[in-house]
Amino acid sequence: MDKDPVSELHPVSGFRLGTASAGLKKNGKPDLVVMELAEGSQCAAVFTRNAFCAAPVVVAKEHLAATVPSYLVVNSGNANAGTGMPGMAAARQCCAALAASTGKSPEAVLPFSTGVIGERLPVNPIVAALPQALGNLTETGWAAAAAAIMTTDTVPKGATRKLSIDGREVTVTGIAKGAGMIRPDMATMLAYIATDAAIDADALQLCLERAVARSFNRISVDGDTSTNDACVLVATGCCGLPLASTGDALFAAVCEAVEAVCLELARAIVRDGEGATKFVTVSVEQGADADECLRVAYTIAHSPLVKTALFAADPNWGRILAAVGRAGIVDLDIEGVEIWLDEVCIVRDGARAADYTEEAGQQVMDRDELTIRVVLARGAASEQVWTCDLSCDYVKINAEYRT
Amino acid sequence: MDKDPVSELHPVSGFRLGTASAGLKKNGKPDLVVMELAEGSQCAAVFTRNAFCAAPVVVAKEHLAATVPSYLVVNSGNANAGTGMPGMAAARQCCAALAASTGKSPEAVLPFSTGVIGERLPVNPIVAALPQALGNLTETGWAAAAAAIMTTDTVPKGATRKLSIDGREVTVTGIAKGAGMIRPDMATMLAYIATDAAIDADALQLCLERAVARSFNRISVDGDTSTNDACVLVATGCCGLPLASTGDALFAAVCEAVEAVCLELARAIVRDGEGATKFVTVSVEQGADADECLRVAYTIAHSPLVKTALFAADPNWGRILAAVGRAGIVDLDIEGVEIWLDEVCIVRDGARAADYTEEAGQQVMDRDELTIRVVLARGAASEQVWTCDLSCDYVKINAEYRT
Repeated sequence: MDKDPVSELHPVSGFRLGTASAGLKKNGKPDLVVMELAEGSQCAAVFTRNAFCAAPVVVAKEHLAATVPSYLVVNSGNANAGTGMPGMAAARQCCAALAASTGKSPEAVLPFSTGVIGERLPVNPIVAALPQALGNLTETGWAAAAAAIMTTDTVPKGATRKLSIDGREVTVTGIAKGAGMIRPDMATMLAYIATDAAIDADALQLCLERAVARSFNRISVDGDTSTNDACVLVATGCCGLPLASTGDALFAAVCEAVEAVCLELARAIVRDGEGATKFVTVSVEQGADADECLRVAYTIAHSPLVKTALFAADPNWGRILAAVGRAGIVDLDIEGVEIWLDEVCIVRDGARAADYTEEAGQQVMDRDELTIRVVLARGAASEQVWTCDLSCDYVKINAEYRT
Repeated sequence: MDKDPVSELHPVSGFRLGTASAGLKKNGKPDLVVMELAEGSQCAAVFTRNAFCAAPVVVAKEHLAATVPSYLVVNSGNANAGTGMPGMAAARQCCAALAASTGKSPEAVLPFSTGVIGERLPVNPIVAALPQALGNLTETGWAAAAAAIMTTDTVPKGATRKLSIDGREVTVTGIAKGAGMIRPDMATMLAYIATDAAIDADALQLCLERAVARSFNRISVDGDTSTNDACVLVATGCCGLPLASTGDALFAAVCEAVEAVCLELARAIVRDGEGATKFVTVSVEQGADADECLRVAYTIAHSPLVKTALFAADPNWGRILAAVGRAGIVDLDIEGVEIWLDEVCIVRDGARAADYTEEAGQQVMDRDELTIRVVLARGAASEQVWTCDLSCDYVKINAEYRT
């Protein structure tokens, strides 16, 4: 990520963003975003699998099943989750208000909320701020929108790619918010990605699900999501190229760009983890299959003992080894396992590597970014996940979140 | 637990404990325990399922399969884990030394270690300290042994029960160490329980496995154990009663007492969790089966967001609700779910309870001990697990463990 990750996001033809301050954030900063999809756009989405999914998630799924959306409306500062029937009504009112002022049906509006769980969503301030957001809709609105959807995030998050295909440019741009994390199941992750390629609905959904599986889901355990998580991919079709279909080169190129954007956003979310001081890649190689690689990787990535050792820059390889051992691979031959910190081998033949020194381990641990690499010596599969350390600040931030 | 949980542990006839200082603890405190089983004793044990199990675990399993043990030898200060073949040799040398000085075979000695992972076990100081430990073997050695097996524990842990059966007394006494925890998979949990009842080997193993399942495994995820965890149950048969068999009243009574002792020890381990300021019972009721109750309970108990809210005494019920929602019950009817903090209902009908007030929630959260109770309204199963909060001190203790 560059210093300012959202200042140079390429506009996507046919996709406009407008922001406003509805007063839901106590500091008065922008907290409302409206996104407008050009006529003829397609829209794919994936949502949280949390059984207590928030009211806006329920409504967005309903609306998405009914028609192709023309607008997305996002508020930060209040999650409208755990709010029961009044919460459902509030989400519908926001959609209805935006529909009324744009001449669309309420079903053509998808609502999204992020912030504190369990407090009533104040509908009137949102409705009152909609005209302001609609008034500044612009294809260059990405940076302002990235800032407006932030909650405990310390930096806005954006990523962008430009492709040249058959002499035409195709753009993929996205923004996200995350932050409250050891992993994203503990805070709302919202991401909005748009491309000006033309892609039909089924292919677009496939493209999004593939990209999410290899990006946002690599910083989380499958199915472990917050009440509000959502990721939306819009294809406006305004770039002038023919409709991309699964199997053709255009589709493959767009998918690759979407995955790259998602991956950059996912990594930015980890990097901005609450209280995080280190960005850590956990790479598990030579597994029998992807599943066992991921199990080992997540066991390491979620271990509070590994994460506190990372915070302390302590090359406590025993904690990593113990995490590998309890990942549930029943027939693991520990004699074959190697563990590396960047270029330093710390475990070999089931024990501390003979040539390992604390000094060498310490040098790696002092880095802001490092890779924990586990070689299982069981097959050809490999997987990566990304995580951060667990700091005193994480506890402080989360202990003081509502006070 | 009383103020001094080990001062009044009842001796168990036929089971003697001796302690010594081998110098493995830097402060010179006792760090070696020898336990002697009277002739005719039976011994059951459960061990960690971590694939990287420590050398003493491998050796103890081997020896237990070969013969009934006469001695247990435990050192604290060094886990002898991740030490490869030299670690295996070190564990065997300790057994051989103890066997030589007592006229037993090395297989009649079970070794146990707890402490830092990955450093060579210094055999000579242990061997040199064995005579001291053997010299003070006594049936009243429980308190000294409970202190000697401690690592980051702040208090020794013991529990004891006396039963009167057919005019005779039966005693069950146990000690444990734990501490480095959010859950015990992250530190070594060692527990030694003895009874003077006479129980055959198979029945004793059944008794131990049942008790562990409902106590130590309720403060941990099944299978998630450290490299060194072990729990041993000895039956000396010295109380004068006939052999207890599965199905008879004597066996049932002893099993109940063993489970009570294990539960008290398990709860003491949670209470002494690193940096813990609160003792929290998570109770899940009216589930379809025990498995889903436990899944919900563990999801709450392991959530860093719930645990930091507990540390902050913040009745952030949204975090508990989100944890229930992501526990993986696919057909959960959220409208039927209730969540209680002690006597205060915080969630009903899928949203904040109408009569809930922050003041009422705050009153419960300010307590040192509290129960999070989730009513699933799906069936008749119920389960409890125990946990503690996640404090700044937890991070500090684990960030500074080796420095």
